[in-house]
Amino acid sequence: MRSVIGVDAGGTSTKALLVDESGRRRGFGRSGPGNPTSAGADLAARHWLEATLAAWESRTDADLQPPAAVVITAAGVPSDEVRARVSAGLDAVGLPCPVESVGDALGAYFSAASEPDGAVIIVGTGTTAAQVVGGELARTADGLGWLLGDAGSGFWIGREVLRAVAADLDGQGPATALTPLLLADIELPDVPAVPWRPPVLTALVSWTYARRPVELAAHAPLALRAAGDPVADAIVAEASRLVLSRVERVMADDGPLVLTGGLLGEGSPLAAALADRWPSRCRRAADGTAGAALLALRRAGVDAGPSHLARVRGEDAPDA
Amino acid sequence: MRSVIGVDAGGTSTKALLVDESGRRRGFGRSGPGNPTSAGADLAARHWLEATLAAWESRTDADLQPPAAVVITAAGVPSDEVRARVSAGLDAVGLPCPVESVGDALGAYFSAASEPDGAVIIVGTGTTAAQVVGGELARTADGLGWLLGDAGSGFWIGREVLRAVAADLDGQGPATALTPLLLADIELPDVPAVPWRPPVLTALVSWTYARRPVELAAHAPLALRAAGDPVADAIVAEASRLVLSRVERVMADDGPLVLTGGLLGEGSPLAAALADRWPSRCRRAADGTAGAALLALRRAGVDAGPSHLARVRGEDAPDA
Repeated sequence: MRSVIGVDAGGTSTKALLVDESGRRRGFGRSGPGNPTSAGADLAARHWLEATLAAWESRTDADLQPPAAVVITAAGVPSDEVRARVSAGLDAVGLPCPVESVGDALGAYFSAASEPDGAVIIVGTGTTAAQVVGGELARTADGLGWLLGDAGSGFWIGREVLRAVAADLDGQGPATALTPLLLADIELPDVPAVPWRPPVLTALVSWTYARRPVELAAHAPLALRAAGDPVADAIVAEASRLVLSRVERVMADDGPLVLTGGLLGEGSPLAAALADRWPSRCRRAADGTAGAALLALRRAGVDAGPSHLARVRGEDAPDA
Repeated sequence: MRSVIGVDAGGTSTKALLVDESGRRRGFGRSGPGNPTSAGADLAARHWLEATLAAWESRTDADLQPPAAVVITAAGVPSDEVRARVSAGLDAVGLPCPVESVGDALGAYFSAASEPDGAVIIVGTGTTAAQVVGGELARTADGLGWLLGDAGSGFWIGREVLRAVAADLDGQGPATALTPLLLADIELPDVPAVPWRPPVLTALVSWTYARRPVELAAHAPLALRAAGDPVADAIVAEASRLVLSRVERVMADDGPLVLTGGLLGEGSPLAAALADRWPSRCRRAADGTAGAALLALRRAGVDAGPSHLARVRGEDAPDA
């Protein structure tokens, strides 16, 4: 039986799913960071290849044919250089096959939809909304990264949490429940005290700049945990408003809206705001792995529809 | 005649001023970046020492005694480690003397004021407001760096300019005169076009993340050049409001307010907003070099007042 591999290359890990031509899951591989922009082309290529090979090695059926196509979904502009390296790597180890890389928005969309037209919103470390027309990305809104955009994203919320805590400690802003929550979560460095600023604020400044900016996204969940605190609620309300405005720009009159990313999981107030606005159109995808596998099936010539999607999502009965 | 040296260690250069005990300028030295946080302790120590030695070597009077004190004004928490290295370096080359490092806000304040009580506002790449009581920094407002604060700063304005241009190109925000101004100022990289985003926006995103975030401060002046454009005017008005709110927090009922930093120079609308609010109290300092020299005179036991300040500022007649 023929097989394909779908790969979701993310900022923290790269996941690869091996499926047979019916869409049934046959193997899984995982490796490290795979975003070419943040991890660099070398590391991304290595992790894309490693996850792909691991998925193939983990196959449960010895009679499965080697992959007929690999589709890799990754953030940012599709990297032809990294794609070509993975292709060369597969050739070199006797698994030659077409390798394609597509935007992470497309992988996310097809992880919960098989229709050619719809929309997708990713709110993880960043924020990207995209319209899908005829199975391709037609336009995106935001997805501009943490300095230029990513409004309402995990980075955005995390930075607002840090700013609110700094303003509280500095006496510039209102007291907030975010302050004790954050200070309990992090380990402040020992820094020399200065007479003109509270020691805890001096330490927080030092702590903040010892990190990569996007790491502030790790503290976004505090804004949700502090629900009921006016400062936290204002941050979440503004994030919801910003995310909604990005989605507005990519929604057609019908078609599904796929929600994905850590900030749109179960119980997320941002997801609730989207479901309020478009009650019957929202679907959730855990990540882009299933969509990458669905696209790989199509690249291999399979007319993959809803039943294939259910299987790549692992929603078929084990022995079906 | 006795001498002292005042050093202003900034993010882009370090300047050292040699003055005699009357405050008269006797030599000047310059070296590279001297901010221990951004340049690192090694480089900062090297540049602090290099500028100090260059100031001494450039002395115009061969009978001048070696410096009796060196005061270095630098951003951030006073670095005792870097200070100790400069002290050891001066010892090693036969110029032993007490070396002190103080916050850049104090150096800026005493560059335009000799009174013990007052306030200072620095708006350059960052924003720091500080209250001076009894000749020492008593409290600061903001100065929290570009991620946590620096509201209304060069970085803040530059980032808002970039965001406004990205929103314009993305169709998310209004058209603005900032867009052609910025695009004429920068050289966009060649990047592969993608069908779902305007090529110029794809190139701008790539351009932005190839830089250190604080380099966005270089584009703050565009917001002033585009005066009359509603988007640019809104950015500048919000920056003025934010800077004013920081200064409010450190102003006592009287005493001078010293303005310094690239965004508060001649013709600055931010400086005009401060002068409107506190008409008779604003004074301007070009940098912190004069203040560092004034403080060095005091550390050497000189009772340095307004006439010394006029001389360290070079405002005395050449032969006075």
